[in-house]
Amino acid sequence: MYSFRNDYSEGAHPDILKAMVETNLEQTIGYGEDRFCLEAAELIKKKIGRNDVDIHLIPGGTQTNLIAISAFLRPHEAVIAPLTGHVEVHETGAIEATGHKIITKVGTEGKLTPIDVQEAMDFHTDEHMVKPRLVYISNATEVGSIYNKSELTALSTFCRDHNLLLFMDGARLGSALTSSQNDLTLGDIAGLVDAFYIGGTKNGAFIGEALVICNESLKEDFRFHIKQKGALLAKGRLLGVQFRELFRDDLFFELARHANAMAAKMQDALCEIGCPLLLHSPSNQIFPIMPNDLIGKLAETYSFEIQKRVDADHSMIRLVTSWATKEHAVDEFIDDLKKLW
Amino acid sequence: MYSFRNDYSEGAHPDILKAMVETNLEQTIGYGEDRFCLEAAELIKKKIGRNDVDIHLIPGGTQTNLIAISAFLRPHEAVIAPLTGHVEVHETGAIEATGHKIITKVGTEGKLTPIDVQEAMDFHTDEHMVKPRLVYISNATEVGSIYNKSELTALSTFCRDHNLLLFMDGARLGSALTSSQNDLTLGDIAGLVDAFYIGGTKNGAFIGEALVICNESLKEDFRFHIKQKGALLAKGRLLGVQFRELFRDDLFFELARHANAMAAKMQDALCEIGCPLLLHSPSNQIFPIMPNDLIGKLAETYSFEIQKRVDADHSMIRLVTSWATKEHAVDEFIDDLKKLW
Amino acid sequence: MYSFRNDYSEGAHPDILKAMVETNLEQTIGYGEDRFCLEAAELIKKKIGRNDVDIHLIPGGTQTNLIAISAFLRPHEAVIAPLTGHVEVHETGAIEATGHKIITKVGTEGKLTPIDVQEAMDFHTDEHMVKPRLVYISNATEVGSIYNKSELTALSTFCRDHNLLLFMDGARLGSALTSSQNDLTLGDIAGLVDAFYIGGTKNGAFIGEALVICNESLKEDFRFHIKQKGALLAKGRLLGVQFRELFRDDLFFELARHANAMAAKMQDALCEIGCPLLLHSPSNQIFPIMPNDLIGKLAETYSFEIQKRVDADHSMIRLVTSWATKEHAVDEFIDDLKKLW
Amino acid sequence: MYSFRNDYSEGAHPDILKAMVETNLEQTIGYGEDRFCLEAAELIKKKIGRNDVDIHLIPGGTQTNLIAISAFLRPHEAVIAPLTGHVEVHETGAIEATGHKIITKVGTEGKLTPIDVQEAMDFHTDEHMVKPRLVYISNATEVGSIYNKSELTALSTFCRDHNLLLFMDGARLGSALTSSQNDLTLGDIAGLVDAFYIGGTKNGAFIGEALVICNESLKEDFRFHIKQKGALLAKGRLLGVQFRELFRDDLFFELARHANAMAAKMQDALCEIGCPLLLHSPSNQIFPIMPNDLIGKLAETYSFEIQKRVDADHSMIRLVTSWATKEHAVDEFIDDLKKLW
Repeated sequence: MYSFRNDYSEGAHPDILKAMVETNLEQTIGYGEDRFCLEAAELIKKKIGRNDVDIHLIPGGTQTNLIAISAFLRPHEAVIAPLTGHVEVHETGAIEATGHKIITKVGTEGKLTPIDVQEAMDFHTDEHMVKPRLVYISNATEVGSIYNKSELTALSTFCRDHNLLLFMDGARLGSALTSSQNDLTLGDIAGLVDAFYIGGTKNGAFIGEALVICNESLKEDFRFHIKQKGALLAKGRLLGVQFRELFRDDLFFELARHANAMAAKMQDALCEIGCPLLLHSPSNQIFPIMPNDLIGKLAETYSFEIQKRVDADHSMIRLVTSWATKEHAVDEFIDDLKKLW
Repeated sequence: MYSFRNDYSEGAHPDILKAMVETNLEQTIGYGEDRFCLEAAELIKKKIGRNDVDIHLIPGGTQTNLIAISAFLRPHEAVIAPLTGHVEVHETGAIEATGHKIITKVGTEGKLTPIDVQEAMDFHTDEHMVKPRLVYISNATEVGSIYNKSELTALSTFCRDHNLLLFMDGARLGSALTSSQNDLTLGDIAGLVDAFYIGGTKNGAFIGEALVICNESLKEDFRFHIKQKGALLAKGRLLGVQFRELFRDDLFFELARHANAMAAKMQDALCEIGCPLLLHSPSNQIFPIMPNDLIGKLAETYSFEIQKRVDADHSMIRLVTSWATKEHAVDEFIDDLKKLW
Repeated sequence: MYSFRNDYSEGAHPDILKAMVETNLEQTIGYGEDRFCLEAAELIKKKIGRNDVDIHLIPGGTQTNLIAISAFLRPHEAVIAPLTGHVEVHETGAIEATGHKIITKVGTEGKLTPIDVQEAMDFHTDEHMVKPRLVYISNATEVGSIYNKSELTALSTFCRDHNLLLFMDGARLGSALTSSQNDLTLGDIAGLVDAFYIGGTKNGAFIGEALVICNESLKEDFRFHIKQKGALLAKGRLLGVQFRELFRDDLFFELARHANAMAAKMQDALCEIGCPLLLHSPSNQIFPIMPNDLIGKLAETYSFEIQKRVDADHSMIRLVTSWATKEHAVDEFIDDLKKLW
Repeated sequence: MYSFRNDYSEGAHPDILKAMVETNLEQTIGYGEDRFCLEAAELIKKKIGRNDVDIHLIPGGTQTNLIAISAFLRPHEAVIAPLTGHVEVHETGAIEATGHKIITKVGTEGKLTPIDVQEAMDFHTDEHMVKPRLVYISNATEVGSIYNKSELTALSTFCRDHNLLLFMDGARLGSALTSSQNDLTLGDIAGLVDAFYIGGTKNGAFIGEALVICNESLKEDFRFHIKQKGALLAKGRLLGVQFRELFRDDLFFELARHANAMAAKMQDALCEIGCPLLLHSPSNQIFPIMPNDLIGKLAETYSFEIQKRVDADHSMIRLVTSWATKEHAVDEFIDDLKKLW
C-alpha cells in the first residue's frame, strides 16, 4: 500500500537527520537562541535577500497561523480568508479561539482577489461589526493553485491602500516557488506581504515553519507570543538544525521540485486518459474526479483522501506528492490507473 | 565552557536518534494516529499498569499545561498553584491567555498542602470571585523538591472531597520517580491525580510530553483541544518514535537516574564544603547560595543560571544535570569549586 | 422627523418609569438578588407555566448571547447560525471573542431548518474542525419572520437527536409571540429549546433581557458567568422592577401587539400600492424595496435605515415599529407614501 | 433594618429620575450617539477642563475595567494591581477572561507606589514571563483610602518613564474628589493618568460609568470594544440622561460630599468611643473592628458586611454611606453603638 495521502507521510530528509545526529551532543542554550537557529535565520535572510526581516522558527503551521494572527490583531479586528483557507476549515477554530472572527469569501480556485477583499470591506461598515484588518492567503493554496506575481502585487497594493495586513500561509511555499508556473521569488514575497512563513513540515523537515515578519510594526515582542502559545521549544535547536540544512544550499527547493515533478507526472497521465480535475494544478496536490468504483479499486493498492462526492457515481480524490515520493511508485500508479480506467 | 544551565542543552539520547533514523522512511498516517504513537501509548499504559487511561503526546510542557487546563475548566473556574509553579511564573501568562485565573499560595518548598488549598477555597466565597477548580502541582517541583506518597495522597483525598481536579506537571517526573527519596510509582500517581504528564523534553527526548488523562470525565474530545492549540503535529510519529524508545524498556528511568546521580554528587560536595542550599534537593536541580565573587569565577568555566540575589555579597545559582551530563565534568566542577571556596 | 428606524428610539413605557419612581428609595441588596428581581422571575415562570427553569435578568442582547453561549460551550465547540443571525452580523465578533466559531448556513427567510443543521454537521467530521454544538436562532428573526410550532418542533427534535443545544435569541420575542401568524406559547418554547431569552429593551423596557435556562445541565454556576462578563448590575433592581412591571399583568404582550399592529398597517398599505417586500413580515419589522428617489423624499420627513442596494434604481429599507409608535405617525407616513408613489 | 451595606442600595437620585421621565418619549438614535450622551460628554469635558479626551458611557464598573484593559493591551501584556484591587478580587476573573494576567503587589492601604511597580518590573525579565504594561489603581480604593496629588504624580511620572499605562478605577471617584483630604481635581487626574472612569452607579445613578481616555494612542476604535463586550446599550440615552444630570451643575459632587459627611460622622463617633479602624478613612467606606457580640447586636437593626475575622473575638465590618444615606439613620446608629459599646 503506497501512500499519496499527504506530504508528511515520511520522516525528515536524510541530510536533515544526519545533521541532527552530528550536532546532537553539542551543548546549546535553549528556546531558539542557539547558534543553529541563528545560522538558519541568517541563511533564510540571505535567500530572501533582506536583512531587515525577523525570522522565527515555530513547530507547526496551525500554531504559526494562530500565533502570528493573534499577535498582529487587536481584539475587534478580523481576518479575511478564502472559504477554503486552512485557518477557516482545518484548524478547529484556532483563530476564533484567540478571539478573532474569520470573514470568508468564496474566491477563485482557492485564491482571493482585491474584488473579494473589497466586498468584505464594503459589508463591514461600523462598530457593530468586526473590523477587517488582515488578509490571509495560502501559497500554494489548499486546492493546489498558486499566486503569480501580478496577482500578489494587486492584492498587496490593495491591502496597503486600505490599511490591511497581508499574511501568507506558506505551508506549501516550496511547492509554489518551484512550480513551473511560478514567477515569484522569496524576495518578491517579502516585499509584497507583511508576514509569511516557509513551510518545513511538508517539505522535508520533521517539524518547523519559518515565520518571516517583514512589516517593522509587527516585530516587537514577538517571542512573547510564541512562548505564551506554548511554541517556544526548549530544544529550539531541533528547528534550527533542520532549517539550516534546508537553506544551507538549495535543499529546500530541490525537495519541492521533486514533489512537483512527481505530481506533474501523475497529472499529465490523468489528462492523457481524460480524467477531469478540479483544476490543472501547478503544485504538489492534484484533485482528480473519478468514478467511485475506480476509486475503490485504486484504494486497494494506494492510500489517498477522498475529498467529496461530486455526483452519485463520482467523487473527487486528493493525490499528494512530496520530497520522498518514489518515482517508481508514481509510475506504477499511472500503469494501474490506465489499466483500470 | 561546560553547561549546567538546564536539562535541555543537548539533543536526544542516541537510542532515540537511532530509532528516528531507522523508521524514517516508513510511511505513516499523520497527526498522532500512526503505529509509533499507538505503540508508545501502549507501552506507557503498561508501565502505569492501567488500560483505562488516555495518552496524548504533545510537543512541549507549556503547551501541555495550557491545553489540558483550558480543556478541563469552564470559563469561570480557576487554578490553584504554588507561587513558584511553572504556570504562574514562566509561561508568559499562557493559562490566563486561555481565560483562567491562577490563584497562588506560597506553599512549602514549591509544594502545596491541603491547608494551602483550603485557604484558597475559604477565600473564594461566591460568584463575585472565580471558582477554584483545579490544583496544579509539579513533581519534581521548580525548586527541586518532590512529593512523597503520603503528601500526594493527602492532597488527592482533599481534592476529591472538595470537587477539585488534581493536575501534575511532570516536566521532570523522571527525576522525581527515580529520586532516592521517592516512594511513588507511575501507577500510584495515576490513581491519585486526574491527569498528569510524563516529561520527555527534559529527560532525553528532542521534544514531547506524554499527557495521561486518568479521570474519565476529562477524556472526551481531547484531540480537538490539541489541534485547536496548534499542538497536533502532522508528523506525530516524531513524538511516537521517541516515547516508544523511552518506554520500550527502562530508558526513561535510566536517564533520569543518571541525572539524579550527577546532581547528588555535586550536592554532596557542596554540603561537604559547607555551602548553603535553598533546600536539600532530591532531584536533578540544586540551588546553592554562594559568594558573588566565587560565582563570577565559576562562571568563567561553567554555564549556569544566577537565580537571585540573597544579600549584598551572596546569590543563589541553579545547577541542573541531565541524562547527558558527563561525570568527568561534574568531577572537574567539584574540584574547581573546592579550590575556589 | 418621525423615526421608524428601530424599536428602541424612546425610553421606557410610562408604567415602568412609574414603578421605578415608586420603588426608588426602598433599600435592597445588590446584584440581582433583591425582591424585585425575585418577583420578576416568579412572574415570568408563571407565564411560562414552569417552575423548573432558571431566570437571569441581563442588561442587553449581545451580552446575553455572549454570556450564555460561552457558558454553555466547551472551547472546541461551535455555534450554527443563519447567515443573517445577530451573533454573526451585528455583534462585532462577540462570540468569537469568547473563543467560539460561528458556522453559518444561508437558511430561509432568516430561519434554520433541520436540513441546514444537518449540512453543517456533515461538513464537520473530525478533530481538525470545530464541533458543532449549539444552534442559534432568533424569533422573530432579523428579517422579520417568525418560527411556527411545527418548524420549531422539527428543529428541536433534530437537535435533541444529535446532541445539539438549541438557543433562541428573543430580542423581539414579544413581537413574534403576538404575531397574527404565531402558534407558539412561552411554555411551548421552554419545552422545545435549551435556553432562550425574552427581550425587554425592544419591547418597552429601558434595558433588560430575561434569559430562561430550561436545560438542567446548563444552569450550574450561571451567575459566575454573568459577573465575569460584567453584566451583573450592582443595582440589579433596575432590571427587576422593569420585568416585574412587564409581566405583572400582560403589559409585555400588549406592547408587542401594538408594535405589530402598527407594522401591519404600514405593510398593508405597501402591499396595496404594489410595493415589493423582502418578505411578508408577520412582526414589527418590514423591508420594502423602493425606488431610490422615493426613498430620498421619504427620508426628508421620516427616519429609517437603508439596508442595501437592490439594483441601480432601487434599495431595500427597514421600517420598525414599537410599543411607542404613534398611530397618527403611521397614518401620515402612509398618506405621504401614497402621494409620492 | 437600615442598610449601611453599600452605596448602591437605593435607586437613582430623584433629579435623575425626573430627567428620565421628562425626556422619556423623545425619539433618539441608539447606541450612545443620541444628544443626551453627547451633551453629557461635553459637560464632563468641561468639568475636566479639556476637550482632547474621549468620553464613553458604559453601564458598569467591572465592564468598564474589562473593556478598557483588554482594548489597551496586547495579548502578552499584563496588569499590575494592588492585592486588594477590584479587578483582582471581585470581578470573577474578568480580566483574565480577556486573556491578561494580573500581577499583584501588597501595596499600602490599598494603594500602589512606584516602589511596588518597580518590584513588579524587576521580577519580569524576559519573554518567558508576561510583560507588565498597565498599572491599575482605584481612587477611592477598596479600603477607603485616597491618592493625594503627590502620590499620583509620583506614580504617573514613574509609569511614563517606564512605558507603563496608568489606569484609574473611579467607581468611587466622587467620594475621593470630595474628601476633606483630597487635593486632586478632575483635570489633575486627566493630566496624570492614561484613562480613568467616573463612577455613576455608586454615586446617584442607576447605572453608568464615564470612561475618560486621555492618551491619544488608546482612543482609536474604542466603540468596537464596547460593542464586542456587549456594553453598547441600544438605549444609550439611559446613560446620557443620567450623566447629563450629574454634571449639568454640581450634583455629582454634592452627592459624594453628602456620602462622605455621613461616613465621617460615623467614623468620628467610632473614634470617640475608641473603636479600632482598619485605617482612618477619608471617604465613604469605613472599616471598624468590633467585638463579635456587639456586631451581632448591631446586625439586628442594621445591615452591613462582615469583612473578616480579626481574632477569636473580633471581626472587621464595613460601613458604607451614599448620596441616599439619611442623617437620622446615622445618628440612630451612633446612639445604638454608644449604648452597646
